[in-house]
Amino acid sequence: MDEIRTAVVQEVDYDAERDQKFQILNKLLENRQMRSLQLILEDMNEFDVAEFLSEIDEKRRPMVFRMLSKEMAADVFANFDVDDQETIINSITDSELSVIMDELYMDDVVDMMEELPANVVKRVMRAAKPDHRRLINQYLNYPENSAGSIMTAEFVDLKKYMNVRESIARIRKIGEDKETIYICFVTTSDRKLEGIVTVKDLLLHDDDMIIEEIMDTNVIYANTTDDQEEVSEKISDYDLLAIPVVDRERRLVGIITVDDVIDVMEEEATEDFEKMAAMTPSDKPYSKTPVWEIWRNRIPWLMFLMISATFTSMIITGYEDSLAAQAVLISFIPMLMGTGGNSGAQASTAVIRSISLGDVEPKDAFAVLWKEWRVSLMAGVSLAAVNFIKMNLVDRMLLSNTSVTLIVAATVSISIIFIVMFAKVVGSLLPILAEKIGVDPAVMANPLISTITDTVSLMIYFFIARILLHL
Amino acid sequence: MDEIRTAVVQEVDYDAERDQKFQILNKLLENRQMRSLQLILEDMNEFDVAEFLSEIDEKRRPMVFRMLSKEMAADVFANFDVDDQETIINSITDSELSVIMDELYMDDVVDMMEELPANVVKRVMRAAKPDHRRLINQYLNYPENSAGSIMTAEFVDLKKYMNVRESIARIRKIGEDKETIYICFVTTSDRKLEGIVTVKDLLLHDDDMIIEEIMDTNVIYANTTDDQEEVSEKISDYDLLAIPVVDRERRLVGIITVDDVIDVMEEEATEDFEKMAAMTPSDKPYSKTPVWEIWRNRIPWLMFLMISATFTSMIITGYEDSLAAQAVLISFIPMLMGTGGNSGAQASTAVIRSISLGDVEPKDAFAVLWKEWRVSLMAGVSLAAVNFIKMNLVDRMLLSNTSVTLIVAATVSISIIFIVMFAKVVGSLLPILAEKIGVDPAVMANPLISTITDTVSLMIYFFIARILLHL
Repeated sequence: MDEIRTAVVQEVDYDAERDQKFQILNKLLENRQMRSLQLILEDMNEFDVAEFLSEIDEKRRPMVFRMLSKEMAADVFANFDVDDQETIINSITDSELSVIMDELYMDDVVDMMEELPANVVKRVMRAAKPDHRRLINQYLNYPENSAGSIMTAEFVDLKKYMNVRESIARIRKIGEDKETIYICFVTTSDRKLEGIVTVKDLLLHDDDMIIEEIMDTNVIYANTTDDQEEVSEKISDYDLLAIPVVDRERRLVGIITVDDVIDVMEEEATEDFEKMAAMTPSDKPYSKTPVWEIWRNRIPWLMFLMISATFTSMIITGYEDSLAAQAVLISFIPMLMGTGGNSGAQASTAVIRSISLGDVEPKDAFAVLWKEWRVSLMAGVSLAAVNFIKMNLVDRMLLSNTSVTLIVAATVSISIIFIVMFAKVVGSLLPILAEKIGVDPAVMANPLISTITDTVSLMIYFFIARILLHL
Repeated sequence: MDEIRTAVVQEVDYDAERDQKFQILNKLLENRQMRSLQLILEDMNEFDVAEFLSEIDEKRRPMVFRMLSKEMAADVFANFDVDDQETIINSITDSELSVIMDELYMDDVVDMMEELPANVVKRVMRAAKPDHRRLINQYLNYPENSAGSIMTAEFVDLKKYMNVRESIARIRKIGEDKETIYICFVTTSDRKLEGIVTVKDLLLHDDDMIIEEIMDTNVIYANTTDDQEEVSEKISDYDLLAIPVVDRERRLVGIITVDDVIDVMEEEATEDFEKMAAMTPSDKPYSKTPVWEIWRNRIPWLMFLMISATFTSMIITGYEDSLAAQAVLISFIPMLMGTGGNSGAQASTAVIRSISLGDVEPKDAFAVLWKEWRVSLMAGVSLAAVNFIKMNLVDRMLLSNTSVTLIVAATVSISIIFIVMFAKVVGSLLPILAEKIGVDPAVMANPLISTITDTVSLMIYFFIARILLHL
């Protein structure tokens, strides 16, 4: 009966299969059947093993980790987050650490080094071989978020005078430890990049064909100092499996593979989300960020935005007596500010996202402005019309609020038109301006724009009230 | 002199190289040197050719497109956006269209078919071969955004009784037109998925080794009905180049490659950004979306949020007379609502993003709540303290606003604490609740939460004012 269920589940869903396997592993661990545990683990995907190890009791983790073969151990280690990596480093011997360091790809090493505390970094550095250590130091020197800081050193290089047979022999010989073998890089004797050859090219050509004749010299490449966002855009635009990274002399110094770019894209999108919600971006996942760190990431902007609301206070204070006389006007302040804020947020989000996808550039400022101006006119007029009807039907008639006169409804409705137009224009222009002067557009997002539109919304409202209602 | 500059630029930056090439191409086009133009284009990357064609005069586009070889034409066509695809389809003959259809990968065909107008779809269908047409229809039937709707049919399948030599021979024979050859899929005679073999495995093993002995049976796979977001999470977690897609009987029906997943990730992030800023998501890039469509995507939420602000109006109306008497309280309404809105936006953004990255699940609701409760207490108290000092220093002393008394400052500051706590708790819980009941958490974002916190903020403020100031 159980077997039938297993069979059915296995045919349906990978995640269900995996959960089932984890249950079996946990049972084996409880019963201390370490040999069976080891056998199953060794056959699993390294990401799943890492997940399993992260879920079990922290005290048992190093013991189970040490049962893994050295290749599996390194792969699993690379899949850990930095906290788990630190725990493991602190519980293994120097020689075990050396073995793992030997197996790790350079990009994973650099990733880890950037996050580990200084004393652990020192120990890890001691465990690395001298030439490896030199390379790590070089990579750590590239600016954060640059192509140099995320590239890896493990690639297959070929020479243009080799033929297909020799190339395949070389891949067979050195391919085992390379991050990818499917793209091979053709270099000169002084390491300058000349072309690329894919394994597909090699397989589809005769054994005696010379690399020079089949290599693609029209190579898409990145520079060590390029921003990681640019690199990921290139990999995504050109559908690449890996991109070569060259230094200023066009010497090939590393490669970036597509799987690393996926991580970069997730990171960059998360950063934009955080900035747009007025938070300091954090490297750690939410569930692993301590409370005080979350507080620290959020409080500066909240403070700034709270203090800058002093402007709205001052404007209202200026009209206090008039407002006391025409108290009905107060009740529409939240709606007007909210509508302005939401209109601005829509425009700024659309533009910020378009900039980060490469769809909009600073030179398009006028086109964006003209587009938003028309959208805001249409949106403002339709909102004003609905509001005018709503105030007359709901506030005047349904709620029989006698202070809502036709002229009050007109004041509020006309204000809406100008507020929406102002908000959309500012919301779309500020991010472009930021990009132009080299500031991240995401910082110019909703909360900042809300604060500006809040202030101007009130000024528009009171100005129109002064004309129509002699406020 | 010019040559030196060219040489220097070429050593520095791919984008500069490309711009230069485009200038040359434009000059050739102007001078009608079509043969040279053709030669250069044929040697370029298909993405760049597509970019070049999109930038030239629309009337010349079909003419240049027709100069391309059939492989290049299909690749370039796949890189066009749907508007350009439609222009091209309308300007080529049926037989030219047939040739392109033959060369296109299934996922690109389906992508295009989902966007093209019905009459063009009909013509494209007629141009496809019968068995191709049947497959297109089958793929178009999978639910939108499912694995089935983004997979492709062009993969290499092997049998487990083949040896390495035979496998490589098969790849050489059928590999040319496959979306990837680097992952091969081992299937039974009734097309059930048994394992995968990479070309790396093939190259690193002896020619006589049997596939069954080297294939990986622990395959990570997706189901046709899986959401595309789940699929991209798997490819990203496991660092895959391609994932097999199976039907309910575990028959291999297609594959999804990593480059398509990158597009999915960009799309999904954009969708989240749009939803979180209260817009209806759109498939088109901002620069290509007509004004009325932008208006249509934005107006429903603006309307809804404007109308729902009736609640805040009603609350204020209820306190109108008291507010007229204590007019100083009015001036802090925007600040309080803004602070509540920003606090809620931070919490909801953090949680929404964590849910979409798989870091937070509905079962973590209590942990999230407890975390946000502590963050909000710390944030609320620090904001309140700063505000209390600011109101006394700036409003009372600097601006000598006599109506700002100590007790007014206390009222506003205490309100801040409760408002921030309420906003963060609601902001973090609503997205989790949405995920729990199967609604996209992104919809529960900033604008909606602002509207709720606006209302409750006013209630908190007036409640505390009633106690402290006998409003």
